[in-house]
Amino acid sequence: MQRVLRMGIAVNQPEQSLSALKPFMPASDVSLAIRAAFLDLIGDPFYEKEQECVRYIPDGLLIVENGVIQEFGSYEALQSRYGSLPITAYPGKLVLPGLIDTHIHYPQMEMIAAYGEQLLEWLNKYTFPTEAKFKDITYARHMAAQFLDELLKNGTTTALVFAAVFPESVDAFFEEASRRNLRMIAGKVMMDRNAPNYLRDTAEQSYLDTKALIQKWHKRGRLLYAITPRFAVTSSESQLELAGKLRQEFPDVYLHTHLSENVNEVALVAKLFPHRQGYLDVYDQAGLVGERSVFAHGVQLTDAEFQRLSAAKAAIACCPTSNLFLGSGLFKFHCAKSRQHPVKLGLGTDVGGGSSFSLLRTIHEAYLVAQLQGRPLSPFQSLFLATLGGAEALCLTDKLGNFTVGKEADFIVVDPQATPLLRLRNPHVPAASIEHLADQLFAVMTLGDDRVIQATYVAGSLAYQG
Amino acid sequence: MQRVLRMGIAVNQPEQSLSALKPFMPASDVSLAIRAAFLDLIGDPFYEKEQECVRYIPDGLLIVENGVIQEFGSYEALQSRYGSLPITAYPGKLVLPGLIDTHIHYPQMEMIAAYGEQLLEWLNKYTFPTEAKFKDITYARHMAAQFLDELLKNGTTTALVFAAVFPESVDAFFEEASRRNLRMIAGKVMMDRNAPNYLRDTAEQSYLDTKALIQKWHKRGRLLYAITPRFAVTSSESQLELAGKLRQEFPDVYLHTHLSENVNEVALVAKLFPHRQGYLDVYDQAGLVGERSVFAHGVQLTDAEFQRLSAAKAAIACCPTSNLFLGSGLFKFHCAKSRQHPVKLGLGTDVGGGSSFSLLRTIHEAYLVAQLQGRPLSPFQSLFLATLGGAEALCLTDKLGNFTVGKEADFIVVDPQATPLLRLRNPHVPAASIEHLADQLFAVMTLGDDRVIQATYVAGSLAYQG
Repeated sequence: MQRVLRMGIAVNQPEQSLSALKPFMPASDVSLAIRAAFLDLIGDPFYEKEQECVRYIPDGLLIVENGVIQEFGSYEALQSRYGSLPITAYPGKLVLPGLIDTHIHYPQMEMIAAYGEQLLEWLNKYTFPTEAKFKDITYARHMAAQFLDELLKNGTTTALVFAAVFPESVDAFFEEASRRNLRMIAGKVMMDRNAPNYLRDTAEQSYLDTKALIQKWHKRGRLLYAITPRFAVTSSESQLELAGKLRQEFPDVYLHTHLSENVNEVALVAKLFPHRQGYLDVYDQAGLVGERSVFAHGVQLTDAEFQRLSAAKAAIACCPTSNLFLGSGLFKFHCAKSRQHPVKLGLGTDVGGGSSFSLLRTIHEAYLVAQLQGRPLSPFQSLFLATLGGAEALCLTDKLGNFTVGKEADFIVVDPQATPLLRLRNPHVPAASIEHLADQLFAVMTLGDDRVIQATYVAGSLAYQG
Repeated sequence: MQRVLRMGIAVNQPEQSLSALKPFMPASDVSLAIRAAFLDLIGDPFYEKEQECVRYIPDGLLIVENGVIQEFGSYEALQSRYGSLPITAYPGKLVLPGLIDTHIHYPQMEMIAAYGEQLLEWLNKYTFPTEAKFKDITYARHMAAQFLDELLKNGTTTALVFAAVFPESVDAFFEEASRRNLRMIAGKVMMDRNAPNYLRDTAEQSYLDTKALIQKWHKRGRLLYAITPRFAVTSSESQLELAGKLRQEFPDVYLHTHLSENVNEVALVAKLFPHRQGYLDVYDQAGLVGERSVFAHGVQLTDAEFQRLSAAKAAIACCPTSNLFLGSGLFKFHCAKSRQHPVKLGLGTDVGGGSSFSLLRTIHEAYLVAQLQGRPLSPFQSLFLATLGGAEALCLTDKLGNFTVGKEADFIVVDPQATPLLRLRNPHVPAASIEHLADQLFAVMTLGDDRVIQATYVAGSLAYQG
C-alpha cells in the first residue's frame, strides 16, 4: 500500500507581512530519530576525489528537531546522548537526501509521453492546449495535488517548477506545496508572442502579475518564487526587459527559463533576435543571467556560452529524459563540469517533455547520454547532481542537499532490494565498503524506479510511504 | 501480490526419440475463453499502411483449445457459438500477443547494470567471471528459474537465449523452460579463444557438445536450438567453420551470434580476420549467414552488410537498452527496414548488457534511438517489432506473433492504467479508435514497466499474474 500523508498545515492564508516570514514552517516540533545506513555528498565528485566527497555511515543516526537536522553521525557515537528518543530504524535500507528536480512543468503532467514530435511542434500540438486548462483554479489545484504526490512518491522533495501563464495556476501550486510544507520554487509563465491567443499575456501584464505573485508567495513558509519567461521564442524583447527589471527589484528571486534545447529552436531565436550574439546573449542583454538564474537544457550551447554561464554563476538544469525523448541531442556534461569554466549543474525531469517523474530514471538516461560520449558519470557524480548539485544550482546549499547539521530535514529511504531483480543484483545490504556502495547505488539508479522509494520525509515528517 | 504459476509438466525426461516430438506440449486440454480488448499486428507497419496492419477488437473473444488459438473475433460475432464456455473477462485491459525477445543472455541476469565499461572491457571485467558459475548445473537451474520468472513477469513468452559455454547451462535452461511449457530457443556458447581458460572450449569439443545438445533438445516440446558462437572475436576460424558444418547437418536449427556492436570490436575483428571483407563476411565465409541466422546488434553495419543480410533473409536483433548503456551507438532502424533491402528485425533486451528485462522499456529506448535520428518509431511499429516482427526474425510466424487461428496461445494482459500516472494519462479504456489506441499504447510503452503486465498466458495457461 502506498499513501501520501498530508500534514495539517493551514493553506492559502491571506497575505502575510514580511515580518511574519520565517525560514520555513516546521511540520511539528516533535523530535525525530532515524537509524539506518546514510549516504550523502559533502563535496563535488566532478572536481574532488570521491572518497573526500562521499559520506557513508553504514549504521548512522539522524536527529531532527523542528524540521531541522540537529545531529548526524554514527549510531555508536550518538546513542548515549539520544538514547531516550524513540528511534525509527530502517534496517537494510539506505537513507539519502531528498532528491532535487531543477526543471519541471506541473501543468504538463497529464500530457507526459506525447508521441512523435520535436520541441517546437510538440509545444504547439500538445503543450499549449493542455496548459490552457490551468486558468481554472479548481482544475489547477486538483492537478497540483496529484503532481506533488507523484514527486513525493519518486523521492523528490524540492523542485523548480513552471506553472502556466495564468496567475491562478501559481496560486494553486503554492497552496498545495504549502499544504505539504515543501520547499518549492515556481513561477507564472511569461509569454506574449508566438503562442495561441488564449495563452498569451502582455509584457506589462506579465510584469504586474509576476510582481504581485512574488509579493504574495516568495519566502512564504518554504516557498520561493522564480520569474519565468517561457523562452526567448515566446517573449518579446520588452517582456524580457521587464523580467530583468523584476530581477533588479527582487534580487533574491529566481529566474527560470529554457535555453538552447533544440537546433531548430536555436535557429528561430537567431532569426527573432538578429542583433544578439546568440541565444544566451538574448537573455544576457535583458539582464537575466546571474547567480539565481537557472536555464533548462543547454544541449546546443557553444563553448563561449558555457564560459559566460560559468562567469555569471548561473546554473543549467540538464534534462536527459527530455532531450532524448524529444530528440534534442546529447548534453555535454564534460563542458558544464569543466575545471576551467565550471557551471552549476542540476538534473531536471522536465515532465512533460521528459518521460518520467523519477530522478532515478533521469540519472539512468543521463548515464546513457554520457556513455554515448564515452564519458560515463560515476554513481556518486549522478547522486551529487540530484542532491547537493541541485541545491547548488538553486543556491540552497545552506538549506538542502545533504545531512549537514542545520539543514532542513528532507530525506528519503531507499530500498536497494525493492524488486526481485534488485534483490538478486544487490544480495547484501548495507554495503560493506564505498566500492560496494557505488555498485549497489548504480544498480538502484539503473534498475530502480518509484518502487525503491520506501519513504519520503519532508522537514522531518513522513510525507510518503511506499 | 505477484506470483509465477508453474505448470505440472514433467521435466528433464530422458532422451526422446524423434518420433515422440510434437509441435509442442499443450499445458492442458481444457478450453479457455478470454473476453477483452485485443490488439495485434497482421502486417508490417514499416511497409504497409497502419490501418491495414493493426487489428483492434475493443470487445473481442479468444478461444483456445489445447494451447492453440481455435477462434478469434468480436464477442458479438462469436458469443452464440461459445456461450457455454466459462469466460475469463478482463474489462478495461488490453490483450496483446506474448512479447518476443530476440536476444538475451540468461547467465548474465545477476550482473545486469554493471558500471562504466564499453563492450570489450565489460566482457572481461564482469561477464566472463559471472558466466563461470554456470558450470554448476544446480546453480544454473536456480538462475534459469529466476530468469524465466522475470521474463514472464515482463510479458515475454519467447526468447532467443545465450546460455554459457558449459553444456550443463543449456540443460538447466531447457529443463526450466520445459517445466513452464515455454517456446524458447537457446544454445551453448562456442568460444575457443580470447577468453579466460576456464570459459574456453575447443573447436572440436564445441562441435560435439552442440551436436549432442541439438539431438537432445531441438524440437523437444516447444524448445528449439541455436548454434551459438559468442562472436568472431572469441571463435577461431575452425570453430566458425564447424558451426557452419552444424548448420548444414541440422538445417532447421538456428544460428545466433553477435555482429558489429561496437567500434573497437569491429576494428578487432578486422585485425583478427584480415583476409575477410568485413565483420559479416567472417560469418558468411563460414556458412553462418542464412534464413535462420539471428545477429544481435548490428549498430556499426555498413550499407553493403545490410544488403547482404537482406538478400540472405537473415535477421537482426536490435538491442537499444544495451547499445545505449554500453555506449555502442544508435541502431539505424531505417536501414534495416528500408524498402529496397528489408532485413528481418526483432528487439532484444540483451540482459546483462541491456539494462532491463522489459520489452516495454526496450521499446522506450528504441524510440529514443530513432528520435535522436529524427525518425521516431510509431507505437504500432514498436509493437510489431516486439511481437510479429520478432516472430518473423525467428522464423516462427506460423506459430507466434499474433492471434491468427492455429497459432500458439501465448498472450499477455496489459493494464493501461497500472499506476496513478498511467491512470491520469489514459483516463478512458478501452480506446475508442485506432488513433486513441496509438496514443494509449505509446503512453504504456513510455511510462510502463512490468507493472502494466497484469497476466501472462503460455499456451493457453495462466503462467503469471501481477
